[in-house]
Amino acid sequence: MAWADGANLSDHAMLPILIADVSRGGIVESRHVGAFVVADAQGGIVLSGGHAERATYPRSSVKALQALPLVTGGAAERFGLGGEALALACASHVGTPAHTAVAEDILARAGCDAGCLECGVQWPSSKAASGALSAAGLRPGALHNNCSGKHAGFICAAVGAGRDPRGYVGPEHPTMREVTAAVQAVTGADLAAAPRGVDGCSIPTYAVPLRALAAGFARFGTGAGLPGEFAAAAGVLRKAVAEHPAMIAGDGCFDTVLTAAFGTRLFIKSGAEGVCCGALPELGLGFALKAEDGSMRAAEAAAASLLRRLLGPHAVLDRLASPVLTNWNGIEVGAVSGRLG
Amino acid sequence: MAWADGANLSDHAMLPILIADVSRGGIVESRHVGAFVVADAQGGIVLSGGHAERATYPRSSVKALQALPLVTGGAAERFGLGGEALALACASHVGTPAHTAVAEDILARAGCDAGCLECGVQWPSSKAASGALSAAGLRPGALHNNCSGKHAGFICAAVGAGRDPRGYVGPEHPTMREVTAAVQAVTGADLAAAPRGVDGCSIPTYAVPLRALAAGFARFGTGAGLPGEFAAAAGVLRKAVAEHPAMIAGDGCFDTVLTAAFGTRLFIKSGAEGVCCGALPELGLGFALKAEDGSMRAAEAAAASLLRRLLGPHAVLDRLASPVLTNWNGIEVGAVSGRLG
Repeated sequence: MAWADGANLSDHAMLPILIADVSRGGIVESRHVGAFVVADAQGGIVLSGGHAERATYPRSSVKALQALPLVTGGAAERFGLGGEALALACASHVGTPAHTAVAEDILARAGCDAGCLECGVQWPSSKAASGALSAAGLRPGALHNNCSGKHAGFICAAVGAGRDPRGYVGPEHPTMREVTAAVQAVTGADLAAAPRGVDGCSIPTYAVPLRALAAGFARFGTGAGLPGEFAAAAGVLRKAVAEHPAMIAGDGCFDTVLTAAFGTRLFIKSGAEGVCCGALPELGLGFALKAEDGSMRAAEAAAASLLRRLLGPHAVLDRLASPVLTNWNGIEVGAVSGRLG
Repeated sequence: MAWADGANLSDHAMLPILIADVSRGGIVESRHVGAFVVADAQGGIVLSGGHAERATYPRSSVKALQALPLVTGGAAERFGLGGEALALACASHVGTPAHTAVAEDILARAGCDAGCLECGVQWPSSKAASGALSAAGLRPGALHNNCSGKHAGFICAAVGAGRDPRGYVGPEHPTMREVTAAVQAVTGADLAAAPRGVDGCSIPTYAVPLRALAAGFARFGTGAGLPGEFAAAAGVLRKAVAEHPAMIAGDGCFDTVLTAAFGTRLFIKSGAEGVCCGALPELGLGFALKAEDGSMRAAEAAAASLLRRLLGPHAVLDRLASPVLTNWNGIEVGAVSGRLG
């Protein structure tokens, strides 16, 4: 699989395509371009637009893949992690007390606490949660970081394997090596040769061709093409997220709303800089999408429009594919429109 | 001047150009395209990239043009508005107590109060200001809206002309008609024939060709080509903003930092959906820039890189043209880079 950084736009097939636009007053005010791939578990492209091999940092979209060693290594079972905990290990959560309590519980089961987290401090993206902290004269901690569940899972996996979790965010820590190996096994991409960046929560993020991401999610959603232990663990994680949709993000959030609407028919996870990936187990397909400009409004509307094309009409998809824009007086002033379906 | 909605991208000259990109781990993670024009007061294009006639809602970038009738109509003088007040009338402020106090004072001088504002309620974009509100158990009001200074100016202008200010946000209110006429006089665009949207604060926003915006700012910065009263008023507003840079936005904000650095050598104002406009009075030039995707990080970095090309090297421009991205642990993980200079 060729690596391409997307910089060479001279080849027409590598040019980004329109994925969403923003209207106001009867005209298009802004436009978003990008690329997407729908693939099967063998890596075959079923549908695509733009540069299918575009090297793309998946960011948080692969959190569920990164959570596989927590299950395959036995730590999830040993420490008795329930569905909420496993869902939070795959999450970019909004930092409500419901989320931080689960993260704290995961850590406690491994004999650790928030002081072990190496993800950094973030104000909750839930306005209610951050407002409540301010109103109580409190500051956020590492538990409020959207990645605290994933990090608690890493720590749990390290402790479960009898390791010192300290430094677990580093690419050479044995637990992070297992995490990277899991992403490589699922996507089929050679991560040792891939560009490596540092993610928002300080763990490595590897640039993967969009097609490899899409095929990886087809495998994650079906188990096809995965080693047996990964196939089983993927099923466990998908079930946990489907049963606890509020854990994967938060009430009203894109991933949570879609998971609540489709249950085990759809696994979906967004990532920073306009990434959205997912699996459609019934169809045997996975998809990966990148807004070239990193816009989340574009990635979400485009993904919803693509899902409408793949899953058929659905009220939730209609709403998310064309979210209405209102102003400070609540007046409808325009709309974002996904253009992939 | 031809109207073009930018939808027809088949003509190469209408294609957006790269204006900024975002790097991480040694590769480009995201890219922003757009268009820009640098023009003189006669409307001649000095420099451009992308579709120079792209119909663009200027949004808040033309607040200073919209404030002209406050000065030309005599209300600013009659009610004794000082430099801070005039700067706030041109502002998208971050809602600190320093900003809301000035907005309140403008209203009081016209015998009005916050209840007259029709801009809607917005949480201050200053985290310190919104945190302080939460900590005090308070909610924001219309004074905290980033547009409250502009709206206070509209109300002042209406009262100064002996009018009932109620409904001033409507396109047919006599004060809003004067505001629209001022934008038309400065830009030369036929706003009666222009697409009209509703802005975030409920006033109309008219789509103007990028070139007309750039030429308008060249006129605003020099007075050349403007009716005498507008030329004088533009000078009054530019001086007020240059002397009170914190009023135009807030500490650390793009427009404020640049205004503080360049004083009367540069007038600059950002607008929602990736717009940035400005005037370079010494050079007799104006510029207008639109990030096609509506991204503010792109508009700011691109504008700073363009200004470096026009004004020469400057430490503040270097920093704003390539802002470093740090993660939740404060680790440098990448950078946004403006690509216009």
